This record gives sequence, C-alpha cells and structure tokens, in this order.
Amino acid sequence: MSSPTFDPSAMQRWLDHDNHDTRDGLRALFRDPLFTPRYNISLDEERDLALRRLQAICDAGLISVTDFRHNPHRIFSVHETVGMMDGSTATKMTVQFNLFGGTVLKLGTQGHHDLLLDDIDSLASIGCFGLTELGFGNNAIEMQTTATYDRDTDEFVVHTPSPMARKYWITNGAVHAHYVVVFAQLMLDGTNEGIHGFVVPIRDKARNVLPGVTVWDMGVKIGVNGVDNASIGFDHVRVPRSAMLDATSKLSADGELTCEVRSRRGRFLSLADQLLSGRLCIAAMTLGATKVGLDSAIRYASGRLAVGPTGKSDTPILTYQLQQRALMPLVAKTYALNVAFNHVKDRYAALGKTTDRETYTDVLLLCCAMKALISWHAEDTATTCRERCGGQGFLAANRLGEGIIGGHAGMTAEGDNRVLMQKIAKELLARADKRQIAQEAALAFVPGPLRRPLEAALGGDATAAVPAVLRGNLSDPDFVLQVLRAREQRRLAGLALRLNQGKKRGKGLFDVWMLEASDQVQGLAQAYAERVVYEQARAALQRCDPAWVPTLGRLFLLAALDGLERDLGPLLADGLLTPKSGRELQDLNRSLCRELGADALALVEGFGVPAHMQHAPIAGDWLAYNAFDNFGELLPELQRGAPAG
Amino acid sequence: MSSPTFDPSAMQRWLDHDNHDTRDGLRALFRDPLFTPRYNISLDEERDLALRRLQAICDAGLISVTDFRHNPHRIFSVHETVGMMDGSTATKMTVQFNLFGGTVLKLGTQGHHDLLLDDIDSLASIGCFGLTELGFGNNAIEMQTTATYDRDTDEFVVHTPSPMARKYWITNGAVHAHYVVVFAQLMLDGTNEGIHGFVVPIRDKARNVLPGVTVWDMGVKIGVNGVDNASIGFDHVRVPRSAMLDATSKLSADGELTCEVRSRRGRFLSLADQLLSGRLCIAAMTLGATKVGLDSAIRYASGRLAVGPTGKSDTPILTYQLQQRALMPLVAKTYALNVAFNHVKDRYAALGKTTDRETYTDVLLLCCAMKALISWHAEDTATTCRERCGGQGFLAANRLGEGIIGGHAGMTAEGDNRVLMQKIAKELLARADKRQIAQEAALAFVPGPLRRPLEAALGGDATAAVPAVLRGNLSDPDFVLQVLRAREQRRLAGLALRLNQGKKRGKGLFDVWMLEASDQVQGLAQAYAERVVYEQARAALQRCDPAWVPTLGRLFLLAALDGLERDLGPLLADGLLTPKSGRELQDLNRSLCRELGADALALVEGFGVPAHMQHAPIAGDWLAYNAFDNFGELLPELQRGAPAG
Repeated sequence: MSSPTFDPSAMQRWLDHDNHDTRDGLRALFRDPLFTPRYNISLDEERDLALRRLQAICDAGLISVTDFRHNPHRIFSVHETVGMMDGSTATKMTVQFNLFGGTVLKLGTQGHHDLLLDDIDSLASIGCFGLTELGFGNNAIEMQTTATYDRDTDEFVVHTPSPMARKYWITNGAVHAHYVVVFAQLMLDGTNEGIHGFVVPIRDKARNVLPGVTVWDMGVKIGVNGVDNASIGFDHVRVPRSAMLDATSKLSADGELTCEVRSRRGRFLSLADQLLSGRLCIAAMTLGATKVGLDSAIRYASGRLAVGPTGKSDTPILTYQLQQRALMPLVAKTYALNVAFNHVKDRYAALGKTTDRETYTDVLLLCCAMKALISWHAEDTATTCRERCGGQGFLAANRLGEGIIGGHAGMTAEGDNRVLMQKIAKELLARADKRQIAQEAALAFVPGPLRRPLEAALGGDATAAVPAVLRGNLSDPDFVLQVLRAREQRRLAGLALRLNQGKKRGKGLFDVWMLEASDQVQGLAQAYAERVVYEQARAALQRCDPAWVPTLGRLFLLAALDGLERDLGPLLADGLLTPKSGRELQDLNRSLCRELGADALALVEGFGVPAHMQHAPIAGDWLAYNAFDNFGELLPELQRGAPAG
Repeated sequence: MSSPTFDPSAMQRWLDHDNHDTRDGLRALFRDPLFTPRYNISLDEERDLALRRLQAICDAGLISVTDFRHNPHRIFSVHETVGMMDGSTATKMTVQFNLFGGTVLKLGTQGHHDLLLDDIDSLASIGCFGLTELGFGNNAIEMQTTATYDRDTDEFVVHTPSPMARKYWITNGAVHAHYVVVFAQLMLDGTNEGIHGFVVPIRDKARNVLPGVTVWDMGVKIGVNGVDNASIGFDHVRVPRSAMLDATSKLSADGELTCEVRSRRGRFLSLADQLLSGRLCIAAMTLGATKVGLDSAIRYASGRLAVGPTGKSDTPILTYQLQQRALMPLVAKTYALNVAFNHVKDRYAALGKTTDRETYTDVLLLCCAMKALISWHAEDTATTCRERCGGQGFLAANRLGEGIIGGHAGMTAEGDNRVLMQKIAKELLARADKRQIAQEAALAFVPGPLRRPLEAALGGDATAAVPAVLRGNLSDPDFVLQVLRAREQRRLAGLALRLNQGKKRGKGLFDVWMLEASDQVQGLAQAYAERVVYEQARAALQRCDPAWVPTLGRLFLLAALDGLERDLGPLLADGLLTPKSGRELQDLNRSLCRELGADALALVEGFGVPAHMQHAPIAGDWLAYNAFDNFGELLPELQRGAPAG
C-alpha cells in the first residue's frame, strides 16, 4: 500500500534531532527482557520493575543530571525514548533527574552537589520533589509547610501544620526515595521570608523512614502504577542550615538572609524553575508513547481485514475513509508537534543563564504550549487508536490503555494544561500591554486589509463589528499561515477589548478572566500554540531533504488544517473564514487523509520504533500471537501455552 | 450555591422510570462491604470478587432471565444500578442474563428451558455467548466454526477449523462458565444451512474444562479486569441433536431441517437478536457509571477551593467558567439521554413478538443510537471529569479511570459505535427508498422555505446549490427542534444525492459509502440520534412535575445546543445557520452553563446516587480521607493507618 518517498531511518534521525548515540544506546538496552511489558503483576512488583528498569538505564550511563549543564537536549531525548518503553520508569526518572536532581544542581551549591550529584546519576540516592500540598496543588505559593530557623541550634525545623499541608502526589516517595526537596515558607525570627527549598532526608540507606517523617502510600492509581506516590508529612523535623538550597538565597552562620530575588513571588518562581524543563520532559515522554501507539494502530489497520466490496473479509480497514479520517490527522500532528518540539528544545538549551525577561518568557510560553499540546495529543491519539482498534485495543498487551492514562497523567501534571493555557494568554496580553500598544498593538500585527474593521471593532462595540473575512486557497501554506496568524491576533485584540470593557463596567480582572472570558482565554492560547507549531513545521521544511518536502508539506498542512477544522465553528461564527472556505477545508482534509493514508506505513516507520520495541501484538503477527494460550502476556515465561512450531 | 426547584428523590424516581423496588433492593444490597470498590488486588481476586457480587445479586432474586417475558424494563434497570456499582459485575451479568440467558430463552425450546433457566437465575449454571471469532469480529456472518450433523450418531460435531475461527473475547469463559452458546455454520449433508446456535457444555460443575474444548485466558485488559475473557476452540466436540437452539429452525430425528427464516442472512439476524437488548444493557450500564462519575466530579468541584479574587484559596472551582463549561453540558446530556433512553426501553418492551418490519427497524435504530450516544457520552464524561478533577481524578479510588475504560468497553462492544452509526444511516436511506420517495422523500420532511433550494440542489449539482439558512431564536425550543430536523433531513437528502451521483459515475455503493462519504454517513446518523433525543426530552417535559419545567427545559436545551455547538463547523459551512446564529449559540451555551451551574449540586442529587454508593473520596470529605494512611483503599481493613479520632 505504501510508496515511501523517504528512507525511514533517515526520517527517524531527522525527527529525533539530537543525541542519536544516547537514543541508540537506550534502544539497544531495551532488547533486554527486563524491558518487555508485563501485565499480571502485583503493585509491589510493578514498582520494583520500574525501579530496576531505571537502574539499568543509570548503570548504562545513559543519563546524567549534569546534562543540564552541557547537553540539555540529552535529558529530553532520554525522556522520549524511555517514554516509548514505559511511562512508570519515565516518571520515576523525570523526578529523579529533572525535578529533584535539576533542582539540587541549579538551586544548590557545592555542598549539595558534592553530597548528591554522583549518587543521583547512579541512583544510589533517590530523590523526590516536595512542592505540591494537598490543599494547594493549584496555588502553591499559598503552601503551609514551614521551615523555621532555630538560631540556638543553627537548624531548620521543617513542619507540616495540617493534613492540607502534607506534600501530596510525591513520586518516588512511597517506597524508594532517600531525600525530598521540601519547599516551605522560610520563617526567620517570626517573619515569613517566602518559599525556599530544603534537602531533607526521609529514609536511611536501608529504606527505613526517618523519625518525624510520615510517609503514606497513595496506593493504586488509574495507571502508571510502577510509580510510588506518597503523601509526606513532617513533625518538627530538624535539618542543618546547610540543607537550604542556597544558590540564590543565603543564610549566613549568624542568621542573616540575603536574597538575589526581592519579592516573595519572584523567589517562588525562581525555585520552581525545574517545572519549565519538567514540562519539556513530559512533552518528550508523551510524544514517545504517542509514536508507539500510533505505530501499532497503523500497522494493525494495514493488516486487519474486514468486509470488502463482495462481502468477504478481504479489505484492510485502513482502506476505509472512517479509519483514515480518524488516524491520519494524528500521524500528521505527531510529525508537526515533533518538529515544533525540537525547536523549543533548541530555544530552551540556548537560554543558558539568560536574565533577559523577554527571552525567558518566550521560552516559558513555548514550553507551556508544547506540554499542553503534546499531552492532549497523546491522550487523543491513544483514545482514538483504542476505539479504532476495537476489541484488540482493549487488551492490555496492545498498550493503548497505557497511552490513554499516560496522556491523562501528562495533561494535569506540572500544571493543568488549561491553567498553562491561561498563563500563555496572560503573557501574550501582558506583552502587548508592556509595549504600550494594548489593543492597538494587536492591530499592528494584523495584515493590512483587516486593520480597518478591527479598528472599528476596537473603537466601538465588538459585537456590532462586522469582521473582515479572509479569502484564499487553503491548500496554499502561506494562506494557512495567514489564517493562523489572523486568528491569534484577532483573539488577542478581542480579549484585550473584553478586559477593557469589563474594567469600564467596574468588573475586576479576576471576574472577567475567570467567570466570563474563559473560552476566549483558551481560544487565544490555542491559536498561539497552533500558529507556533505551523511556523516551526514550515521552517523545518527548509532543513530537510528536499525530496521529502512534498510529503512533509502535505503532512504539516493536514496537521494545521485539522486544527482549523476542529475550530471551524468559532472560525466561521467569528467571520474569519467564509462557509465556502469551511466546505473547502473539509474537502481538502478528506483528500489529504486519503493521499497520506496510502503512505501511512512508511510514515509511522519514520517514527523509528524498532521491531523489538513493537511489543503490541497488533503491531506484528497478531494471528500467531493468538494461536496459543498467551494469557495476555508478552514474555514467554508468563504465557501459559507454548507457541506451536 | 444550590437553589433546587425540585425534590431530588422525586427527580430520581422520575429519571429511574420503572422498577423502583428492584432498584431500591439493589441499592440496599450494595450497603454490604462486598460491594465497596477494592484496588490493590490480584487478577484472580478481582474476578472472584465480580462473581461473588453477581452471586449476591442473584441470591437476592433481583434479576431473572424470565424478566424478558414479563418485565423487560427490569433487566435494564438492574443493569443501570449494577453499572453504578461495578462494571465488571455488570458485564458478567449482562452476558449471563442477556446474551446467554436471553438467547436460551428466546431461541431455545422447552428442553433448553428446563435444563437451564432456573440455573441461570441462581447462577448454578454460568454461560457465555460464542458469537465473535478472532478473524470475524466485524463480519460475523462469515464465521468459520462449523456444527456438522452426524446422522449415524444423531449428534452435531462442533469444530474450530483455524485460530482465526476461535471464539474470541468470550466473557465468563476464562474461569467461570459451564456452557457456551456456540454460533456455527450448520453443515447438513455437505450443505451449509447458515448460522445456528448450539448449547455446548465447556466445564463440569467442578469447573474442569471438558475434553475437546480449549479455553485460553485472555489475561489482563485495560480495565474491567473482574471479567474473565477467553478464546475458546473446539476440536470435533460432539453434542446431541437437542443442543441446537430450535425455536425457529428444527432438525427432526430423521435429519430434516425446517426453518422459519429462509435466507442465510435472515437466519443469522434472528439469532443475534439478543444484541438488540444487549445494546440497551450496555447503554444502561454506562449510563449508571456516568451518573456516579459526574456526581463525584460536581461534588468535588463544589468543595475544592482554589485561587479567588484576592489570591487566596477561597473559591470553589465550580465557580470558574472553565469548570462550568466543561461539566454542565455533561450533566445536561446525562438528563436528556436518560429520558430518551427511557422512551427507547418503552419501545423495546412494547415490541413483544412483533413481526412488523417497520416497527422493528424503528426500535433497532433507537437501540443503536442509544448505545452509541450513551457509551460515547460515558467516555467523554469520565475523561472530562478526570481532567477537571486534576490529580484527584488520577487516584483509582476516585473511580474516573473505571469510567473512562468502561466507556471504551461500551463504545466497541456489541457493535463498534461507528458501525452502528453506519447501520442507522443505511436504514434511514433504505426507508426513504422504500417509501418510493428516494431523494424527494427527504424533501417532504423539509420545512416549506427550504424546499425550493433543496429541490434545486437535488436536481442539479449539490456543490453549486445555495442552501437556505434557518433564522430564529436558539433559546426557543421549537426553533431548536426545527434546526435539528432540518439538519437530519438535509443530510439524508445530501447522502442520497451523493450515492446517486456515485452510481452515475459508475461507482459501487461500497466505494462511495466506505471510501468517500464516511463523514456524511456518520453526520446523518448523529443528526438522527440527537434529533430523537431532543424530541424525547421535550416529550418528557409533558410528563414531569410542572414545577420542574423551567430547570429541565433549560437542561434539555443545553444538551441539544451543546450538540449543535460541537457540530457548529459543519452547520455553518453547510449554511444551515448564519455566523450570527453561531455566535448566539455560543453565548447562549455560556449563559446556560452559568445559570445551571448554580444548581449543579441539586441536579446531580437528582441522579440518586445514595451516600453509601458515593465511594469516591472526592464525592465526600476528601480532607478526612487524606488525614490518615489510606493506601488508596476504601475498606478500612485494606488501609494502613486508622483514621484519627
């Protein structure tokens, strides 16, 4: 069925972008049966398995916390490749190396580094990240845990005042961790100096919980049960002054506090810096899982026969338009998101120690957008593939359940995607404000023909405005980009106008933002994110093998147009496109799905999931797998009947 | 926050519709800790638990296979109530009582009834339903299992010729079942007489698998792991002639076959009749699960505090427009689907032994529509609630994971929803043909003002037609119904036209239907289903307490308008509504979500989930639940720390 216009392994290298040796090393490591998915195992076994897998990765030297200094891309590449293998291992790893390790690296100083960095790499010391509290998952700056400095003993007393203040969801906490970085309100002589980080031991090397620490196992989750999550409390636990991570705030021996960052909010934000890379880690993990799931679903659709023109079961289901319309946009978006993600990794790595607020904000928005788009896409892809694989998708061994729940984990971890979208919209508006162009700023970005009606709209009653319509050929990438940009700018102007109108009505920002304009806020951020993805996808076409341009160009076009089709109601209601363009858009997407459907197998081969990592039976010879008593397992020793032959 | 205009228990009675005593009996039974969800248990324990729960329901005499004769509503009521408790128990039950029991009841005769009916009710004999084969899940009529009559011994020889022909996904098969109804091609003197059903013992009373039968355990699934699914094969297994279910086809002692139904396809369809009630069973189960999940999510949103106007965590998240826009349409649709489902149950029960094809087809379409809409809604609801409950939604104990995966099970079991939608579209078209009005038939249903442009469209080139636009007030239920009807009729006409044009181009029906018009096929069926739901919801308003009409009217309106908003792109692209109506629709939905959001708690109280079945900690005092070492479990003996106080 497939007529590839590219060499899949070359495509894989291009999508993978960097750290090919590390990725190859992981793929080679994953040949070990230790990395074969297992299903009928206990919670204890599942957690142990995730740890053993992570240990093997560390033993092979395939990731180091110091990669953040020299090669941040490597951190993300490892996350993507491990995410293809097992979400639990990847989650334990991301807490150990990014949230815990990265925080110790960046916010700690020599003493912390000497104590911990080598042991983090070797997994001799396992850590966790104590930011979230039960009552303050969505408002961390209000957290209640305190670290009170005791001048008499030169110690901090770490304390949990109530169950609402217990550190909650703490990965690695329930069973494996030796240390936790506790974020707490620093109390100095009765004054709250804002949130700071403290390295607090919670277990000895024999994994006995230390006095004053209570660790409660959160038990079974809806997925990724290899991750041991805990609720952790501290009953006046004493740690030396040196426990404070003091790269930016220092407490001297005589109890003098000096902080680089003035405001309490600013101090908090600098502490939570690992959430930035953490979002890229989540994007990487879920992108890896998405590739594996889609690879399986496309392979199955290519081989599964169902009713054909004569009534016989002789037609691969991928031939059906229903299947193509469901799966091909997912393939396209996976490609487009991958190349946009590569760009964001580059931007993140180039940040270095920049203090330029605008550059930092740029990267912050990009990281939020990537985490949100890629984790939503992961859930959407796995859900759609599960449905389109029917009963086979319901077998654990085919791994789409892991994809669904892994997507969910990504959607609300490290910031609920919807909250990240609010953050994006807020920054986009704030930027416009800062440049003193407020609503007018938006106008500056609007293409000429649109300016007049928008001016009219902004000067008058928005609902009374007759918006200008874009007319053009949606198969023309330039026009598509124009639509994406106009959508974003118009929504930015519309939201600014709305907030101003609210102000005039005496409404507070909170009320308008949270109670009235939620759809507009989300719509703006979505428009920003999709515009960035298409811009980066088009830019990537300049850097690929010219022979790939026809295929990749159509793929990226489908990715962008699928986003527009999902948003078609608002686009037409707001008059950005005509109904005729709406019909053309649908027709074009149907054509693209059909054309690209013929290349589907080659396209997923470009994801580079090696055969030994295509564990799902539906990705291979599922008839052979079902010709013996497999007990739903993949490892021969866990199956009940020996394969015939 | 809530100002209910109704008594929740009266609302519950109204929604529950029938068999209140049975429902009350089940709710009372579920106070037993046997019915408390458990999480950290093995696959064996989970299966055993589902069986013990089902046994307790049977012991209490709360369901009988003979309900199909006297009170079919009771079957569905039990499914809904058990679906609130545990999807695994409900699934085992539906196979025992509907697929297995119902088939024996309706297709069997006195001998089968004497042998099995009492034992089905008591669970002394457990059965399964052997329809699906590995290779023919989507084309059952092509199945390969044979039952060959042997004149010499007056027996049937049941045989599985290849792994592709193994009975697959067979619920109750892996561990518990004594019997399976095997569907097989009846071979009589070398002639294939079409598919018939045979009661074949597969285990003795001590649960040893019988000779010639191979049962392979399918192992772990992505959810509902209390269900033991099997792949079952037969190696020339002999059963007496009396094993054939012979209500409609009889084989005499001298080997003479007489069939009420002539065609092989007709015989197959009459055999698979339990799939009809099976779809209502699935709708009932997933509707029950949806109510529980939504109840939890709304209760949590009402109590979970997050950032408010001053930055403190003092504002219930349900106050946020984001939360209301996500959750309130789900509440509205649950109500609307519930009342539509009640109507369909009435229609099904009234069928009796009708042989009127048109009436039967009516009910068939309604059953397909209900199964599809309700199971999709179940998945959508659980997915949305999980996301909007953040981390708490990720804990197994909060049960939204079960909702997601339970929804998936419903979406592709007993017919992939998308295939059911195709079936609906096909019947709608066939009907139009039969009434000899083909395309013109559609026109007859179109309101006057639309007739002329549609005639033009149908007579000429569809894409060149300028469709007539509906103008009106979307807060007027009559206008909304007009839109829903016009959408359906226009899509019916459009699809008929498309098929005719295909014919003229020399395209086969298969090619147009499966390769070109998939979106139109799905869109027509969706339009039909949503129109039926709104019609039934409006009809239900005539039968409720008049004091409820303002609230229920707005709920049903929101349910309908949410469907239209999701379809807004096509509606505007096709010119059925104006862009201005599109904007009004969005505004109206925002208003309805805000207004109904204030009544959210009272509305979910109307679902009637009793406190002792609100197991999810987020449905109650989740702070108290998190004030001790709960280990993610709900039964005190499985928790690790005793609650304080």
